[in-house]
Amino acid sequence: MIRIGVDLGGTGIKTGAVDEKGNILSKVSRPTRPQRHYDEVIADIAGTARDAAREAGCDWDGIGGVGVGIPGVEDASTGIVPLCANLYWRDVPLRGRLGELLGKEVHVGNDATVAALAEHVAGASRGTENSVLVTLGTGVGTGVILNGKPFSGSHGVATELGHCVIRIDGELCTCGNRGCWERYASATALIREAKNRLLSEDGAVYRAVGGDPEALNAKIVLDCAKSGDPGALALFKEYAYWIALGLANIVSTYDPEIILLGGGVSAAGDFLLRAIQSPYEKAIFFKAMPYAPIGLAALGNDAGIIGAAML
Amino acid sequence: MIRIGVDLGGTGIKTGAVDEKGNILSKVSRPTRPQRHYDEVIADIAGTARDAAREAGCDWDGIGGVGVGIPGVEDASTGIVPLCANLYWRDVPLRGRLGELLGKEVHVGNDATVAALAEHVAGASRGTENSVLVTLGTGVGTGVILNGKPFSGSHGVATELGHCVIRIDGELCTCGNRGCWERYASATALIREAKNRLLSEDGAVYRAVGGDPEALNAKIVLDCAKSGDPGALALFKEYAYWIALGLANIVSTYDPEIILLGGGVSAAGDFLLRAIQSPYEKAIFFKAMPYAPIGLAALGNDAGIIGAAML
Repeated sequence: MIRIGVDLGGTGIKTGAVDEKGNILSKVSRPTRPQRHYDEVIADIAGTARDAAREAGCDWDGIGGVGVGIPGVEDASTGIVPLCANLYWRDVPLRGRLGELLGKEVHVGNDATVAALAEHVAGASRGTENSVLVTLGTGVGTGVILNGKPFSGSHGVATELGHCVIRIDGELCTCGNRGCWERYASATALIREAKNRLLSEDGAVYRAVGGDPEALNAKIVLDCAKSGDPGALALFKEYAYWIALGLANIVSTYDPEIILLGGGVSAAGDFLLRAIQSPYEKAIFFKAMPYAPIGLAALGNDAGIIGAAML
Repeated sequence: MIRIGVDLGGTGIKTGAVDEKGNILSKVSRPTRPQRHYDEVIADIAGTARDAAREAGCDWDGIGGVGVGIPGVEDASTGIVPLCANLYWRDVPLRGRLGELLGKEVHVGNDATVAALAEHVAGASRGTENSVLVTLGTGVGTGVILNGKPFSGSHGVATELGHCVIRIDGELCTCGNRGCWERYASATALIREAKNRLLSEDGAVYRAVGGDPEALNAKIVLDCAKSGDPGALALFKEYAYWIALGLANIVSTYDPEIILLGGGVSAAGDFLLRAIQSPYEKAIFFKAMPYAPIGLAALGNDAGIIGAAML
């Protein structure tokens, strides 16, 4: 049965019709313009859903259901989204309103959880029952599949590994706490440290950005490390170590069959995996037992639509 | 139906017959003497099991099954205990051997998980589906119940929160890594910091131990803090903060309905809970959503027998 998946972000509403195997049959998008009243955003979501069905050649009555991935969490007991900073949302009854507009059952999930579900159904963790997807981007998102189902805890707030403290009294985080893993494993962290360490030297990073800190991005640092620049390489190794410690923490909490890396930083591919492997193995607590291999996510930006349709 | 629960530690084998509600009907114990061959230890476990059934007035044929909590993990796919340092065990087929000796189905679980299960069935987390028990003792043990069942991950190595890194490059841990939560939240950590900070002063702790570092224990530090000694109180507050950060990490990973504290340090009771509450609330990521209250475990040392019987 064909279902509709919606990847709702602060910038865009990306919607698709998805078949049972996770193939996207159509894609429709509209800008979110989140400063509007949420009713207008929800009306646009409904519009993209009907458009996506039509473009896939499906009668609306034949659509099996609708799922929405949001950059936040829903209170599953009420169907209310209590807070979603990127959308300027507070106490929004997304599930109910969208359900009324579409005459379908609507499911809402966290965007990282939804992406993990997509990888589980149609991506790199297919065939496993327990998996974790870690997206290394501006922040660090984590989605967890347990027993083949998205895990979100008792109140929907589980699996925020990016905001687990990994350095007591460490770097100040956007969440107000200090030392969150996100402050060490995100692209933002790599850029911060590159600004701190690499711009005063006459190394490859300095030359790549023409001495302009604002021109720095994660790809430049990763490329300079790949090309063998000693400063960039030393930073990259430390960054990989910080990622690895958090991945070992994931083994010590969820013990999944596989851990996948996604997000912008994961574009570094095998270069990243190789740098992570050794500190990851060293940090594993139960070395006498099997533990999760680290792999790369397969679905990229489509994971949001596919996973939402699978909710 | 009556079942047998075995709490197997490095010092003693403690075994009981337990009814369905978690009441202990009889208790039998023998020294473990772990330097012996494991076959002798397993034979003694079998002996205590039959003795416990007899003392409870149960015919052995009427016993529903046998559970054993161990200070380690079993490879559930093989029934082998690959490594158990406190017992000097390596690759021990506990489940199979004990099953042969007793003619009953045997289940093996990690001791922290078993204690969490006991609290779930007959203790302070009764009535919840998702709970975490944290035992603050020489180390930090954690047991997790998800959907009413013990959670141990894909390979049995999940829920080792005590060995999650909470301070990158922090204190060296017995596991070989640095900065594990156990190094900040255990009684051992409190004693270490008291030795570092409180013995050079002429404060209450110094007087309580007569200036002898070897006389220090967690209870002395906690009692001095309770009595208002400024140095002990300052250390205790920092210690409570370290505990609180790890508890907030538990919310961000498992999002349980309740978190329970057990182990020796939890004897400080409300004094400890009050000190933890404020930094715990501050460290919660999703403050707009409900999150787990912190409570005290109820079953004490009996949890090992009760939970093992419930495996």
